[in-house]
Amino acid sequence: MSLLYETIKKIENLDQEMMEKARVRVDNLIKPPKSLGRLEDIAIQLAGMTGDLYPKVHNKAIIVMAADHGVYKEGITCNPQEVTFAQTMFFAKGLTGVCAVGNVSGAEIVPVDIGIKGDLPADAGVIIKKIKHGTDNIAEGPAMTRKEAISAIEVGIEIANDQIGKGVNLLGTGEMGIGNTTPSTAILSVLGNIDPIEITGTGAGIGKGGIEHKAAVIRKAIEINEPNRTDGIDILAKIGGLEIGGMAGVMLGAAANRIPVVVDGYISTIAALIAVLIEPKSKKYFIASHASREPGGQKASELLGIKPIIYMDLCLGEGSGAALAFPIIEAACSMIKNMATFEDVGMKI
Amino acid sequence: MSLLYETIKKIENLDQEMMEKARVRVDNLIKPPKSLGRLEDIAIQLAGMTGDLYPKVHNKAIIVMAADHGVYKEGITCNPQEVTFAQTMFFAKGLTGVCAVGNVSGAEIVPVDIGIKGDLPADAGVIIKKIKHGTDNIAEGPAMTRKEAISAIEVGIEIANDQIGKGVNLLGTGEMGIGNTTPSTAILSVLGNIDPIEITGTGAGIGKGGIEHKAAVIRKAIEINEPNRTDGIDILAKIGGLEIGGMAGVMLGAAANRIPVVVDGYISTIAALIAVLIEPKSKKYFIASHASREPGGQKASELLGIKPIIYMDLCLGEGSGAALAFPIIEAACSMIKNMATFEDVGMKI
Repeated sequence: MSLLYETIKKIENLDQEMMEKARVRVDNLIKPPKSLGRLEDIAIQLAGMTGDLYPKVHNKAIIVMAADHGVYKEGITCNPQEVTFAQTMFFAKGLTGVCAVGNVSGAEIVPVDIGIKGDLPADAGVIIKKIKHGTDNIAEGPAMTRKEAISAIEVGIEIANDQIGKGVNLLGTGEMGIGNTTPSTAILSVLGNIDPIEITGTGAGIGKGGIEHKAAVIRKAIEINEPNRTDGIDILAKIGGLEIGGMAGVMLGAAANRIPVVVDGYISTIAALIAVLIEPKSKKYFIASHASREPGGQKASELLGIKPIIYMDLCLGEGSGAALAFPIIEAACSMIKNMATFEDVGMKI
Repeated sequence: MSLLYETIKKIENLDQEMMEKARVRVDNLIKPPKSLGRLEDIAIQLAGMTGDLYPKVHNKAIIVMAADHGVYKEGITCNPQEVTFAQTMFFAKGLTGVCAVGNVSGAEIVPVDIGIKGDLPADAGVIIKKIKHGTDNIAEGPAMTRKEAISAIEVGIEIANDQIGKGVNLLGTGEMGIGNTTPSTAILSVLGNIDPIEITGTGAGIGKGGIEHKAAVIRKAIEINEPNRTDGIDILAKIGGLEIGGMAGVMLGAAANRIPVVVDGYISTIAALIAVLIEPKSKKYFIASHASREPGGQKASELLGIKPIIYMDLCLGEGSGAALAFPIIEAACSMIKNMATFEDVGMKI
């Protein structure tokens, strides 16, 4: 049995009994009913995920999947492709945005080369799980084979399993991949049945042809590849990216282990949509972090059906928004554990 | 010279030179320009407030102002008035919502009795700065005298000065006062020139007469008292609350000491509007935390002109939303200090 199939089979619904217990406790905390809003919802969801009324989320990690994109050659971005390689080295050195934000809650940053074009030094502090040296150009054919897409997802599962095995109890997803808003927008276009021009943005910097050209490349990629919109693996293989597959795998792996996973911004949300297509129950283990400034961000969140909690016009990726949300998840746990109930203080509701 | 006047005189504009330095550094961090959105804005604002490119915000406190309201007798809430007293005792014991959320970032919770109806035990762990045993009924006359309103603001300034003197470098405002959405909505109604019915909500629990009755009480309070909408102290005295004045004082005190102050939800935002009426420059030291679920919340934020960063449908008050935002402020500081610049890594932009 393949790792992917085995993982999907392990994903269960949330523990309804524990959620009911959590709901009763939350409703009995010394505050007006529902006054802590979505912090209450998160506490109840966490109880359902973990089967623990007082879940622990002190051991945090952001898994950052890095890969390159063959569609880069279509001129869809103004950034040099080498930035993927360079920035991935900097994750390991603690120098990037997600590292700085992750510091605050003591989150570990785990960079993974799942498909960077160049070859990183073995001692770079990056986990090397390269499927191939970047995807093929989706404007000319599929990004990868179906087998490679499954392998990318399985890399994510493996890394999630490893981290959880080491004691991590709160995961976040992040990515690095110059050009990756292009496959992300292609996927959103197919899943949401939206013309690319309506959701194409500048990403980290638009190429000379502007948004119109980028949208045209996306439209062409969809027309040429004809992805099956009911098959997450087919979409990933035909118009996706290796880091998107890797993140979908992290999410499936987290869900299979009953560990919460915080979804970062636009690209991560697209990976979440792929994960949910592969196994709908996985969604119950996801928490959305921030609303991306990228035009497709809101649409992607709506399709996923999970509202972000932070609105700060971020569009960096890397998992920086997920890291920003970690202390809020901790606050939900602190609320259910450390607040007194009306009974505790001898008051009636 | 009165403490209030002295404090107002001390409030200066942000340090433009340091903000420019911060902007240059932020634009040189290894990320696409502006990709950390409002986290960048906060880092630049903090540099301007503190005059420090790398501000420290590790020593955090939420000042929770507690007071009662004479308008309670109009039946505008279903909650017993004694909850103000009881809950204030629980702040000191670390049992409430803001305590649980504050735990996560190590924030100290500083409860202050600025006008609770009953008398708390001297050893309750609450700072006793009672102006009077609750306001008078605004539906019958002014909440307090102009002198009492000034005293309430000065209590806030004193507490802020004390905390900052002890080394606190990040403040948040919170409150507890059964019935306090009624004066808050009255203030918003006057400042925004909005009919009360459009912005009256249920608060922590609506009285038997429902929202229509509460709005009618608010309308009557405005008609009877005729507050001068250009005079923050007059508005506070006639239709405000002691905790609202106390929080406005904390904000003015923070600004005078060039210390950032995180504004909590609806009631805190109303206090911020009063502070800004008294001294417009104070606003530059405010950071908005969360968007309250209370109907007037959004309007109050718009009037203040500072967008919240967290959207979680909270409406507890106490400073719980401010506490939730503290790690995000820390992340802004970590970003500007710990991320590498393009020069650091030998890359050109």
